[in-house]
Order: sequence, then C-alpha cells, then structure tokens
Amino acid sequence: MKIGILTSGGDCPGLNAVIRGVVIKGDKLFEDEFIGYRDGWRGVIDNDYMTLPRRRVRGIGRIGGTILGTSRSNPFHDGEDGAAIVRRHMDDNDIDGIIAIGGDGTLFTANRLYEAGIPVVGVPKTVDNDLDATDYTFGFNTAVEIATESLDRLRMTGDSHHRCMVAEVMGRSVGWIALHSGMAAGAHVIALPEFPLTIDEICAYVKSAWDRGRAPLVVVAEGYVPKDAPEGFMNYELDEFGRPRFGGVAEVLAPLIEERLGIESRATVLGHIQRGGEPTGYDRVLATRLGTAAVDLVHNNGFGRMVALRGTEIVDVPLTEAINSLKSVPRARWEEAKVLFG
Amino acid sequence: MKIGILTSGGDCPGLNAVIRGVVIKGDKLFEDEFIGYRDGWRGVIDNDYMTLPRRRVRGIGRIGGTILGTSRSNPFHDGEDGAAIVRRHMDDNDIDGIIAIGGDGTLFTANRLYEAGIPVVGVPKTVDNDLDATDYTFGFNTAVEIATESLDRLRMTGDSHHRCMVAEVMGRSVGWIALHSGMAAGAHVIALPEFPLTIDEICAYVKSAWDRGRAPLVVVAEGYVPKDAPEGFMNYELDEFGRPRFGGVAEVLAPLIEERLGIESRATVLGHIQRGGEPTGYDRVLATRLGTAAVDLVHNNGFGRMVALRGTEIVDVPLTEAINSLKSVPRARWEEAKVLFG
Amino acid sequence: MKIGILTSGGDCPGLNAVIRGVVIKGDKLFEDEFIGYRDGWRGVIDNDYMTLPRRRVRGIGRIGGTILGTSRSNPFHDGEDGAAIVRRHMDDNDIDGIIAIGGDGTLFTANRLYEAGIPVVGVPKTVDNDLDATDYTFGFNTAVEIATESLDRLRMTGDSHHRCMVAEVMGRSVGWIALHSGMAAGAHVIALPEFPLTIDEICAYVKSAWDRGRAPLVVVAEGYVPKDAPEGFMNYELDEFGRPRFGGVAEVLAPLIEERLGIESRATVLGHIQRGGEPTGYDRVLATRLGTAAVDLVHNNGFGRMVALRGTEIVDVPLTEAINSLKSVPRARWEEAKVLFG
Amino acid sequence: MKIGILTSGGDCPGLNAVIRGVVIKGDKLFEDEFIGYRDGWRGVIDNDYMTLPRRRVRGIGRIGGTILGTSRSNPFHDGEDGAAIVRRHMDDNDIDGIIAIGGDGTLFTANRLYEAGIPVVGVPKTVDNDLDATDYTFGFNTAVEIATESLDRLRMTGDSHHRCMVAEVMGRSVGWIALHSGMAAGAHVIALPEFPLTIDEICAYVKSAWDRGRAPLVVVAEGYVPKDAPEGFMNYELDEFGRPRFGGVAEVLAPLIEERLGIESRATVLGHIQRGGEPTGYDRVLATRLGTAAVDLVHNNGFGRMVALRGTEIVDVPLTEAINSLKSVPRARWEEAKVLFG
Repeated sequence: MKIGILTSGGDCPGLNAVIRGVVIKGDKLFEDEFIGYRDGWRGVIDNDYMTLPRRRVRGIGRIGGTILGTSRSNPFHDGEDGAAIVRRHMDDNDIDGIIAIGGDGTLFTANRLYEAGIPVVGVPKTVDNDLDATDYTFGFNTAVEIATESLDRLRMTGDSHHRCMVAEVMGRSVGWIALHSGMAAGAHVIALPEFPLTIDEICAYVKSAWDRGRAPLVVVAEGYVPKDAPEGFMNYELDEFGRPRFGGVAEVLAPLIEERLGIESRATVLGHIQRGGEPTGYDRVLATRLGTAAVDLVHNNGFGRMVALRGTEIVDVPLTEAINSLKSVPRARWEEAKVLFG
Repeated sequence: MKIGILTSGGDCPGLNAVIRGVVIKGDKLFEDEFIGYRDGWRGVIDNDYMTLPRRRVRGIGRIGGTILGTSRSNPFHDGEDGAAIVRRHMDDNDIDGIIAIGGDGTLFTANRLYEAGIPVVGVPKTVDNDLDATDYTFGFNTAVEIATESLDRLRMTGDSHHRCMVAEVMGRSVGWIALHSGMAAGAHVIALPEFPLTIDEICAYVKSAWDRGRAPLVVVAEGYVPKDAPEGFMNYELDEFGRPRFGGVAEVLAPLIEERLGIESRATVLGHIQRGGEPTGYDRVLATRLGTAAVDLVHNNGFGRMVALRGTEIVDVPLTEAINSLKSVPRARWEEAKVLFG
Repeated sequence: MKIGILTSGGDCPGLNAVIRGVVIKGDKLFEDEFIGYRDGWRGVIDNDYMTLPRRRVRGIGRIGGTILGTSRSNPFHDGEDGAAIVRRHMDDNDIDGIIAIGGDGTLFTANRLYEAGIPVVGVPKTVDNDLDATDYTFGFNTAVEIATESLDRLRMTGDSHHRCMVAEVMGRSVGWIALHSGMAAGAHVIALPEFPLTIDEICAYVKSAWDRGRAPLVVVAEGYVPKDAPEGFMNYELDEFGRPRFGGVAEVLAPLIEERLGIESRATVLGHIQRGGEPTGYDRVLATRLGTAAVDLVHNNGFGRMVALRGTEIVDVPLTEAINSLKSVPRARWEEAKVLFG
Repeated sequence: MKIGILTSGGDCPGLNAVIRGVVIKGDKLFEDEFIGYRDGWRGVIDNDYMTLPRRRVRGIGRIGGTILGTSRSNPFHDGEDGAAIVRRHMDDNDIDGIIAIGGDGTLFTANRLYEAGIPVVGVPKTVDNDLDATDYTFGFNTAVEIATESLDRLRMTGDSHHRCMVAEVMGRSVGWIALHSGMAAGAHVIALPEFPLTIDEICAYVKSAWDRGRAPLVVVAEGYVPKDAPEGFMNYELDEFGRPRFGGVAEVLAPLIEERLGIESRATVLGHIQRGGEPTGYDRVLATRLGTAAVDLVHNNGFGRMVALRGTEIVDVPLTEAINSLKSVPRARWEEAKVLFG
C-alpha cells in the first residue's frame, strides 16, 4: 500500500519513534511505500510531502520533535470542504490510507474525514496525557521526567536558602504532569485545575511543611486558578510593548505566599523545556509499539479507529471514543496524592 | 497500629519511595508507628530494627537503594520454625502487622508466614519485571532507562568505528529489560532467554544491518543461551585465581560474530549500574502509590495479599497469585519487536 | 586545630563537596576538629553551629546545596563591630581558624575580618564564574550543563514548530553562563551584559538563521539590556498584587522579535533550576580539591588568602585579589563566539 | 582556501563539535571550502571524501561520534611514502591545507607529513587526557561524567547490599579518568597505572572503609597492574573459542578482595559506554573553540602546529611538543587524592 503519515498539533517527544515504527514495519512486512506530509494537515492541503524510504527513519527514534514538522492547520479551516481536498490529494497521488498522529483536534479532523469516506487511522498524541480511551500517551513520561528533574533541583536550592519554591508545570486543562512530577519530587502541595485549592489551603500546607523544618515545594499546573482568586488576579491584558501584565500562576502565587506567611518564596515556570528533546526509553517503546500497530490497523482496514494503550497491551478503538473527551485527574488519584501533602 | 517494614532480596530503585509512601500516609492518616527491619528478614530474626518516625523518611523518595539495607535471609532457613520466630518478635514488640517489600522469594516467605497466622502484606519488587499478577514492578523503568542510555552511547561509538556492538543487559530468566531497552535503542537484534535465537540467526540480522550501511547493535539478556551453542560454550569453571573461564554471553558472542562475519565486534556488559542509583520519576510515583496502598491494605485487614498495578490502578491480589509464577515475555511481544530486527 | 566552616551567599552546586574535602583531609591528616556554622555568618554571630565529625560528611559530595544552609547575613551589618563578635565567638569556643566559602560579599567580609586580626581563609564560590583571581569557580560547570540541556530541548521543539526560541539564563552582571551554554547549544545569537547588542542586531541574526531554514535559538543573560531599549522597556514597577509589570528580558524580547520579523517566538526563563541540584563530576572534583587545599592553607597559616584554580593547579592568592573585581567576559571570547552567530 | 578535515584514531565525544567550529568559522569569515575525509587518513589515501558545506554541520555539535568516521589507518603504513600520497591527493584536488583531529598517532603522522612539506595542522584528541602540551582534551570531561554517574549507581547498590564494588574505567596507560571520576564519586581507593598499589594496600583501604560502616567503592584504571601481582595473574591467553582467559583487572580484583577480607565484592567494567554518546556542554565548548582556532591557524600559516588549551585560553604549539610525550598523573595529584582514601 501507499500510505501517508502526518504529525499535527503541539510538539511531543516520541513523534519520530512513531514514524519509525510505522515505516520499518510497513516496509519489512508489507512492502508499503510511505510519504510524510510536512507540518501536519498543511502538507496534505498543499501537496507538500517528502518520501519516507526506510533509510530516512534511521536513528530517528531517539530524536525529539518530528522530522515532518507540525502545525495547527486543518483541511476544514474556513469552512473548506476538507474531505474533498484530501480525497483529491489521495487520488492524485494514489494514497491508500493516512496515518494521522496528533491530539484531540487532529483526531477530530481525522474522524470527520473518515465519516466522509477518507481512509484514515489515528495515533493519539498529547504530552498532557489528557486523551481518553488510552491509558497513557507517549511524551507524557518524558515531560514528567524533565519536570521531576527540575523539581529536584528546585527543592535542593530551596533547602539551602530556607525558601518556599513554587514551580509551574504544563497542564492547561488537566493536572497529570503536576500530579506525577509533584508526587515524584515529594511536593508538599500540588495545585491542579481539576481540584482548585484556595490560596489559604495552599498556604496551610506550606506552613505545615515549614513548621516541620522543611523548605516547602509547591507544584502548580499552569491551568490552575485559585478557588478564591480576587478580582483581576489573573489579568490577561497586554501592555504597550505587547507583554502580558502578569506572569504565570506560579509568579502570582509566590509573592502571595511570601506576603501571607513571611516565608521567602520564589517562582519558576518550567515552560517549553518540558515538551522538547529526546524521549525517554519508555516513550520510545510506547511510540514504537503504537507505530507498528498503526500500520497493522491500516492493513486490517481499521479506518476510523486509533491505536491505544490498555494496561500493557496495544489495542485499537474508534476515534469517537477519544475525541472531545477530556481525561482529567480523577478524584481517587487526587485523594491518593493529597494525603502526602503538608 | 504498630507496623514493621522490611526490604528483602536484590537492590532495586524505588525501595525508599515505597517506605516513604507507607510511613507518611500511615503517620498522617492513621497515626501508625513504624519500625524498619535492617537487611530484610534478618532484622526480624535478630530483632534488629530502627524506628521510622516521619522525619526519618524525609527526602528519601528519590534516593536509590534502601535505608533499611537488604539481604537474602529468611526466617525458614535451615528448617527453622520461621513463623514462631516472627510471632515471638511481634509479640515482644507489639507489632500489629508487617509490610514485606521484596521479590518472589520474599513474597513466598510472606505467604508462608501468613498461612501460619502472621499478619503480613506484600509489595512486589523486581527490577526484572518478572513477577506475575502486576503489570509492572518499580525499578524496571529505571533499569530500562539506564540501559537505553548506555545502548545509545554504544550505538554512537559503533557508528564511528563501523563496528558491531554487543551489549548484555540484566535478565537471568526473562528478557523484559532487553526487550524494552533494545526496542528503545533501535537494536538490530535482541536475544532473549524465552526465544533463544541461534548464533546463525543473530549473525543474519547483523549482516542485514551491516549491508544496509549500519553499525549493528546487538542486545542480549544475560540469561540468553544460543540455541545452537557448541559443547563447552558456556563454561562455568573457575581457574586457579577464582576467575570464571569466560565472560558474559556478550563477551562470548562478540568474537563469534567477528569470526563468522568479519565485522569488528565489541562486547559490553552493563552489569550492576542497571540496578543502582536514583529511581526515575515514573518509578518514584509507582513505588509511592504502592506504599500508600500497602498501609491501606494493612488497615483493611488485607493480610496474605499484596499490592499490584493493573493498567493505571493500584489493586491488591492474593500473594499466591504472584509467587512461583514467572512473567516471561509473551510471544506476541517477541513478534512485535522481531519485525524491526535486521 | 579546631576549625569553623561556613557557606554564605547564594546556593551553588559543589558546596557540600568543599565541606567534605575540608573535613576528611583535616580529620585524617591533621586530626582537626570541625564545626559548621548554620546559614553562613549568621551561625557565627548567633553561635549556632553543628559539629562536623567525619561521618557527618559521608556521601555529601554529590549532594547539591549545603548541609550548613546559607544566608546573606554578615557580622558587620548595621555598623556592628563584626570582628569583635567573631573574635568573641572564637575565644569562647577555642576556634583556631575559619574557612569561609562564599562569593564576593563573603570574601570581602572575610578580608575585613582578617585585617582586624581574625584568622580566616576563603574558598571562592559563584555559579556565575565572575570572581577574579581564579580561572573557574565550582558550580559554574553544573549551571552550564543544566542550561545546555534545557537549550537543547528548546532548540528541538523550536525546530518542530518552526519557531524562534528565546531562552534566558543566569548572569546578572556577566555573561559567562550564556556564553558557554549558548556556544554549546549552537545558539544563533547570544546576548551578554558586557556587549549589549541592539534589538535590531539580534533580529538580524535571527533572520539570517531563519533564511537558512533554521529555527533560531536566542540565548540571553538575565542582566542583558538592549542597547537601544526604548523608554519604559525594562520597567521594574510592581502592580497592586505585588507582581512585576514585566517578565524577564527573554519575555520582553520574544514578542518584539515576533513583531519585527513575523517569526513565531517563545520565551523561557530557566531560572532557579540552574543553581540547584547535584553538582557535575567536574564540579565535585574542583570543589573537593579546593576543600583539601583550604585546610592546608589554614595549617600553613595562610590567613587572609583564598584557594583558587589556575590552569590545572590549585593555588592560593590574597583575598584582596578577588574582591570587588568582576571577571566579565573579555572581548576576545565575545569575538570568538560571535563569528558563529546567525 | 580549500581545506581538508579528518578525524582519526579512537572515537571521542566532541569530534563533531570541532568539525562544526572549523566549518562555520571558515565559511563565514574566510569563505573557505571544506572537504571531509572518510575514516581518517584512509580517506586521504583512497581519495574518499565528502563535501562539507555549512548545512552539512548543522546541529552536529551535540552529536557524539564523528560524521566522517574514523580508523587507525595512516599513509606511512607498510613503508609507503605517505607524504607523496598525500601531496598527490592535495595537488589533484587543490587542497591548501589539512586539519587532522586525532591522538598521539595521528599527530605524529601529521608532524611527519609537515616535515616532508605538507601543510597540516593538528587538533589534539584523546578521551584519556594523556596528551601533553594541552591542559585538557575534549572528550575527557564527558568520559568522567559518564563514569561518575555509573560509579554513583554502583555505590548506591553497594550500600544496599553491604558489598564492596570494584569498578574499572578507561585508562590503559594513564589514570586520569580513574582519578577524576573516583574523586568525584568518593571512592575509598583509586588504583592508577602510574602508582601501582599492591593488592594488600587496596585491601587495607577497603577494610578501613568497611570498618567505618561503609560499603567500599574501589575504582581501578584498566591499565592498572597490582605491584605484587602473582605469576600468571594477568593472563592474556585466549581459549579455543577465542575468548580471553580472564576478565578485566576489576574482575580479577573483586574475588581477591572477597577472599582476603570476607567482604562480598562485585566487579563492573564500564567499557565502551565511556567514549560514546553526546558530549557534555564543557566538551562542546572546548571542541568548538579548538575548531575555530584550528581554521585560524591554517590561515595564519601555522602548519606543523596544533591548537591546545592553556588555562582558559586556546593557544597553539608545535606538534613536536605533544607527540610521544605521555601526560600521566603527577605525584602531587596522586597524593592530593590519596589522603581521601579509606
């Protein structure tokens, strides 16, 4: 078969390992021919792609990022008939199927195309681990390891200076990275979007740790908004130089903690380092397994479905199970972690 | 309650995180009192233990090894009435329950004691990931990451010198570490104990990679024995200085590959570095979760059971489900990986 | 002899390795007795110290931070007669000499005390590498490695998204960390406080890299101020919630680059992770060597002097050579790096 | 100018960073044209090279190994007139100068060619740090960091099992890697080729650590031979399968320690992982600086010379200063480290 591959949405460690898994298995077992669309759906729309012979994926499994580039384009943009665009491209180029590697938006587009008759399968991608229908997504493990390493460093320097360190990690809508890295680093309190603590509650945990002689470590997800945030607290206005009037939530919290408790506090926003760079061994294995399963899925006519992880096994599920369904941190996991706070 | 904790068997990254999870939850939620036995069951037999107040577990979650030490002692050694020994110790010290963290042997002993009426629960530990009844064991992820990192380095130096690198990783009876690290590092062939390739088969994969212009990377589990190993091939005799007459299987294979294919080959045995050192964030989270669940298990009268991981959840199962039941690499996982060889 | 040790000023990876080097050598070779002042000079002023027997320094060489804690106190604060305070403490406790590990401020205080007759030697510390009279200071190598690793990640994610990544690293007055990590990571432009590029110059380098198909990587030292910064550009006012009205210089630059060149740009401030955590092997060796040399210096009556690195050798120099003398990046090093920009 | 580059001898982290420094500076400042010989001098002899336009070195600075490959060939092999071979190649291809990056053997060949009139400059390379005339060589720092990390892991697992861990690191003739990594990891004894301890001396240090409650860590350089080694101790005979009859010196020592002291001991040979993989930030900076200086040297007619590090500066020296002159660990460094043993 002749199969097109695309990576779409945000960058995520492991994308290249998926591509490699697809191409090597497809080439060896099925003698498939592969092309790679540049920058996600844009490459499909613009007919901009590279050939993907086996040698093109040599050694890329451990490289972060994606050799295909990515973007947030989609063929239905501006009311376009996305299916027609894609169908035309596939006819012109004799493409038998498309493997779309991406997050919620990408999988939604994939499903929409499938419902319009386009042969497409999905591989779920989100560094935030917020996609439903799969136990874990690749990239999440890497982000947690990077965050944990940074939190370890912050904790150590907080200990030396007898300070409270407030660290902000990724997680706009869900707190998975904060939950896992916070637990790994022994945070004294973790603030998630799903269970918004009040500033008072955070301060109580900080004080509890401080009174026991610890330098408190506070981990907040970037999407966490304090339950009792005062008016104007999270102000998104920009000033005349185009700068936001405030920092991330960590930069808001740290001075508040210092003011209320008299404990010197410092904020760090981990930012983009969490999604860049080499994937962990765990993510390389998961991504490779998903890639080999995706090419099987194409050959088994599994269009409209996506590969996923259940326990230790790779399965496939309808795309509809994953899209528009946020996997947030359940209360049981929150309670499990909360007992270790303070 | 007053609860005793012990770590027994081989060292494993994450042991301290389990201990910390147990103590912090037990202290905060139940006001339990903890003691820690030194060097596994030996500490129970010899009444050698340390108190484990909350402050004693401060920051240990990220430290490798075990603050309690470990050994391969067991109270039934030499036909001793292990249950009587343990019961006496518990009566003398008012111990209400024991949490035994260890591998197959430790859990077997724990079950034997339970059947004799001792209140004991288990936490499964094996860096090899060969315990049944749990999807993964802590320490395995760390070992895979360490091995993968080393394999990456070997691959790079092999590329520069146009050599075949043969790496031996942990795995006496099962090939999980070889499977995962080999797949992560893009090995051209992985040799597992479960599916013993012949030396010819290994050479065929090496040649295939070489002919495509690659510096072949061969990953072997330490317990792998070639199917067609000649007489005397794996010779365990010692010489007059007490040295084994041969190296590990990698050191045996490398010269054979060089001889048969004329490709310069070098062996590296990763050895003890795989089980030492700081656990990954993943392992710290898993170990912490198992620890908090273990103390719940004690309070829920779950004696004779052990905590385990199923998918994303922590559950508990009878000890009998885990002991004497080796979790080897299933054929489906072998086939999944094999398609990427060569 | 009975010797007091203190660590003062900002945290820095390697402090514990210095302490360990001092104590082990002093104990083994001279049978010295050591005490460690808590939180720098505060411990001297408040007579707050811990004993430092050999076992107290076991394994601390690889631990970040300082077991003694640190602060910015000094005995001359508020016009106090610092020398009298310290002399009284030393008499009361039979202290024969003090080893002060710290930066410019600490060494200045040490020299002031020396001039008033107090037997004190110095060990230079600055993660910024800005102390004169020594080729390198411990902690700098670790900060550069942490920064380089982060820059690698940023570069990779920038490549995937076709973005310009602007990273801010430590360096309020000098650009050593930016220079070294920027060169290591292949930055397309590095902005140092010593040689303030204009925003136009930065944009020219960014555009040059972009036109060659690269995702530009810009590294700025936190103390860099653009030569042509408009009025109000670097505004230190705080708003009503106590938050600074602007981000770091990276957060100011990124939108400007995006605005002027039309290239999507993202800022990351590496922050406190650069000074926390385990020191590199290099820093552990340097710190250990400086520690052993410091105790020699005390026994050789080298008061008023500090240990330092010259080439591959550890030497000692008068404290006056180091204090108040900033080691900034020399023009030759700037030119050497600049030729690789764009 | 048209300049040829080659990398020769053993692999070493940083080689690619040198190549990149040469090409970018040469291209930008001098509009030089570069070619890269494959596999060292072999590429010169066989006229086998690749063009090295600027884009070819994109991002290679952080990649281990060498994009040019390496070998131990030399044009004087078998009594050939190496100078004639090289001169003919240079005339045929209009090459104005050659930059040879390699160790003692490569620099010797370079000097021999220079004395026969060939315009060649050198860049010193040895992961062992044993080249004279330069303070440090790139790759050494990376090897020390890898070794230190492994030693940390071994120490931790030794602590858990109450074992003596014996680790063998690189260093056939000199003990620099053992000295630095051993000091960084807090080894209780370090055995170097330069100052061969007797087995009894090693055991005394091990016992001293053991008696203080430590799990002893012994670090040996691979070229260390015990002063009192019995007959046949280091037996290089091969058996009928082509395997050496013994392991590395660590594998010989460990059972001896166990036998003499009754302390369980385990050996690990770190092997090839020490020279493979990504160079540290330190090595990338050093290698880049040496590369830019090498192209300057060519343009300044500095043939017959090599670039080197003196303190913090890059200088150039006659090739004759480096060749045939081993930089071993001086006694002062040995004594400095020895005081911390036991």
